[in-house]
Amino acid sequence: MKKLLAEFFGTYWLVFGGCGSALFAAGYVTPTGVHLGIGFLGVALAFGLTVLTMAYAVGHISGGHFNPAVSFGLWASGRFSAKDLLPYIVAQCVGAIAAAGSLFYIWSGKTGNVIDNTSAGAFASNGFGKFSPDGYSMISCFTAEFLLTMFFLLVILGATDKFANGKFAGIAIGLALTLIHLISIPITNTSVNPARSLSQALFTQGEPLGQVWLFWVAPILGAIVGGLIYKNLLQKTDND
Amino acid sequence: MKKLLAEFFGTYWLVFGGCGSALFAAGYVTPTGVHLGIGFLGVALAFGLTVLTMAYAVGHISGGHFNPAVSFGLWASGRFSAKDLLPYIVAQCVGAIAAAGSLFYIWSGKTGNVIDNTSAGAFASNGFGKFSPDGYSMISCFTAEFLLTMFFLLVILGATDKFANGKFAGIAIGLALTLIHLISIPITNTSVNPARSLSQALFTQGEPLGQVWLFWVAPILGAIVGGLIYKNLLQKTDND
Amino acid sequence: MKKLLAEFFGTYWLVFGGCGSALFAAGYVTPTGVHLGIGFLGVALAFGLTVLTMAYAVGHISGGHFNPAVSFGLWASGRFSAKDLLPYIVAQCVGAIAAAGSLFYIWSGKTGNVIDNTSAGAFASNGFGKFSPDGYSMISCFTAEFLLTMFFLLVILGATDKFANGKFAGIAIGLALTLIHLISIPITNTSVNPARSLSQALFTQGEPLGQVWLFWVAPILGAIVGGLIYKNLLQKTDND
Amino acid sequence: MKKLLAEFFGTYWLVFGGCGSALFAAGYVTPTGVHLGIGFLGVALAFGLTVLTMAYAVGHISGGHFNPAVSFGLWASGRFSAKDLLPYIVAQCVGAIAAAGSLFYIWSGKTGNVIDNTSAGAFASNGFGKFSPDGYSMISCFTAEFLLTMFFLLVILGATDKFANGKFAGIAIGLALTLIHLISIPITNTSVNPARSLSQALFTQGEPLGQVWLFWVAPILGAIVGGLIYKNLLQKTDND
Repeated sequence: MKKLLAEFFGTYWLVFGGCGSALFAAGYVTPTGVHLGIGFLGVALAFGLTVLTMAYAVGHISGGHFNPAVSFGLWASGRFSAKDLLPYIVAQCVGAIAAAGSLFYIWSGKTGNVIDNTSAGAFASNGFGKFSPDGYSMISCFTAEFLLTMFFLLVILGATDKFANGKFAGIAIGLALTLIHLISIPITNTSVNPARSLSQALFTQGEPLGQVWLFWVAPILGAIVGGLIYKNLLQKTDND
Repeated sequence: MKKLLAEFFGTYWLVFGGCGSALFAAGYVTPTGVHLGIGFLGVALAFGLTVLTMAYAVGHISGGHFNPAVSFGLWASGRFSAKDLLPYIVAQCVGAIAAAGSLFYIWSGKTGNVIDNTSAGAFASNGFGKFSPDGYSMISCFTAEFLLTMFFLLVILGATDKFANGKFAGIAIGLALTLIHLISIPITNTSVNPARSLSQALFTQGEPLGQVWLFWVAPILGAIVGGLIYKNLLQKTDND
Repeated sequence: MKKLLAEFFGTYWLVFGGCGSALFAAGYVTPTGVHLGIGFLGVALAFGLTVLTMAYAVGHISGGHFNPAVSFGLWASGRFSAKDLLPYIVAQCVGAIAAAGSLFYIWSGKTGNVIDNTSAGAFASNGFGKFSPDGYSMISCFTAEFLLTMFFLLVILGATDKFANGKFAGIAIGLALTLIHLISIPITNTSVNPARSLSQALFTQGEPLGQVWLFWVAPILGAIVGGLIYKNLLQKTDND
Repeated sequence: MKKLLAEFFGTYWLVFGGCGSALFAAGYVTPTGVHLGIGFLGVALAFGLTVLTMAYAVGHISGGHFNPAVSFGLWASGRFSAKDLLPYIVAQCVGAIAAAGSLFYIWSGKTGNVIDNTSAGAFASNGFGKFSPDGYSMISCFTAEFLLTMFFLLVILGATDKFANGKFAGIAIGLALTLIHLISIPITNTSVNPARSLSQALFTQGEPLGQVWLFWVAPILGAIVGGLIYKNLLQKTDND
């Protein structure tokens, strides 16, 4: 139960911090016209820091997945049991949705803040084609989400390998998520995390909700392939 | 006494570095019109680095709170004694006010630098409603400060847990403060620290000083709830 | 074989993340004209994070070079055997070219994205003179690449020295690459890595491909000089 | 001798990377008018990373001062012998001047790059009054340099204390220098390092060279006071 609570709070923090920084701070311009907003660089840093901070805070309790794709990838690599998959994913999705609700409540406290689900990235939602921030096709978006999640798992599995310098894993994994966002916010608004996509899409509704399937399929497939690559091609054995 | 001096210098550095970067460097534009200022991203980084640097510098002396809400949260979790609360908070507030005084002295050395306490964020003060940088309501601001301080305590208590990877706590906690600022500077100019709010409000006077109560109540309540959640729901025991 | 696969995946990630962040995210402007792109600062961070993350992920497998110049520099310092040079460099170049191909595939999924090889920095290629982003001469570009790679090797060799605080080497080396990019993107678009230059030049063709020789010669020479300086002038011995 | 060479290379890197990023990359704007430059945030990060990277690379050789004020502060705290002060400072100044020369050589390879020593911050020089980037008075600039160097020494001495978490000192000290720049680039262009000020002033000549005295006096005084404060007020003893 402590494990599931840790996943709940960790995924809440990921969505609250990552999507929250995008919603509240990305494009802030002062009344006199100076752009002080944090931009995509700040949002990328925020997403990474949610994972870095929670990895050191509750990683020792739950392992610190905060992401259904990560749980699938760890399962594929043989480091996570199938029977824990469903409870972990439920805890992650509930945490993400609770965070999105909190964000919506706070964000609505400013006059004029209403979700416009006809434009890309509304309420920090993910999307492709017309809903890709920079207009990338569905196949480009699928490929990007697949590859980025695959490499995310290579970093996660490598950095936590028993032969690796494991105490630094929280830094490496958190900053890998920052890196992933630095590359791909203009492509899909960056998911690599089905729970984060679902929570924002539920509040956005409309076409972004209709596109949420891609942000479950591509990251989970990428994570499984990453898990299999690490286990079968890279992982050292005691005999190496 | 060394503990209180460590809290004095640490909180001085937090206010001098965090509020100072906002005052001096956030919106700097060259004479030829190029915006080289550090923006909210730079200010967020500065706040976090004050804590990161002082946590490694004097954390071994005082524990490195630098924040009355943190002291309250640690007390609520059972890791800090009630009798030390008042001296710590006094040292923190004196350090913060000394820093604000130094900032005012340096800042006044530029022609035209006068505090305009009718606009949001004057002298890096916190505020809500009309004094929220982006115009968020009092209830939104209260909710944000409450939740962010609650999660700040979850990170602090988790990262310093005896089962955790504790040597990295200074990085996790410092960067958690960066993350908190990435989310919420446009909402309240970000407090989560009553000493930091008090010091800037004392120099700003006017309505920002009248609003300072929220930046004592919301962070301290959030910190206490965070301390109770960690202790009762997340903390592992030797029997786990 | 696991070593070569680790170099393949690591160099793939370096090019995909570093050049990808430049291609997709550096200059993003919203439809309403707000510049949210990550700029050269974000690209510099991305390059560094590719190395930081992969150093902790697969450093224990291959040593984590991801760069032919680094392999040459380690050989010059006596820490890498001559017979491994060629296979490492081949694995690095194949990984880089595969990454450039993936980037091209994703990037082409936006209408209008066509490589214009008559302007500096096209498809994240390196260049000098007319192809230097800020118009620096060939000799300036050669000097910059030489010196930066030489110091990159000093950092790599020092941080991994048996007398050093070696567990932090991944952080120091990754952030050294960030620093190198902070200095020199306007000069050469920053190489210090022949594999990264080759892969982008192959897709860019034209004059940028004709200039790729400089980004093999200068970094490799700099790395060898760096390796010799460290070994002969700085390295402590057990008798020191 | 290895110690002095380590100080030479470390201070070279500090000036080459910190001042170089300011010269080459701070305000870069594309031909089509998009501002991709790294701004003061990027310059602040670059200065910090020069120290972070060299601290892990050669800290085990020389202690990693790279700054005459730091050597004075360590001497004041009793951790550095008076007889080593002069050779260290000479090595630091020679390294800084060599770096400034290299920067001048590379920078001159772009048509139109000529030092204009009538404006603030020319060739990354430090200054006050008319030569303060944002027009701060001499007394404000002196106070800022004094206080920032004093706190820099508190961080250095605390983070390397035998009771502290010393392996992280390179991160804490490097990022303290980043923080210092985040606060004060608009005030003095940030020195806290007499060698860095001297090297840039020698190439800039004119009034900036006439002002260089302040950037020797204020940082060295601040460092000595910081050293005395740490030793006498904060340092724990075995009996504490």
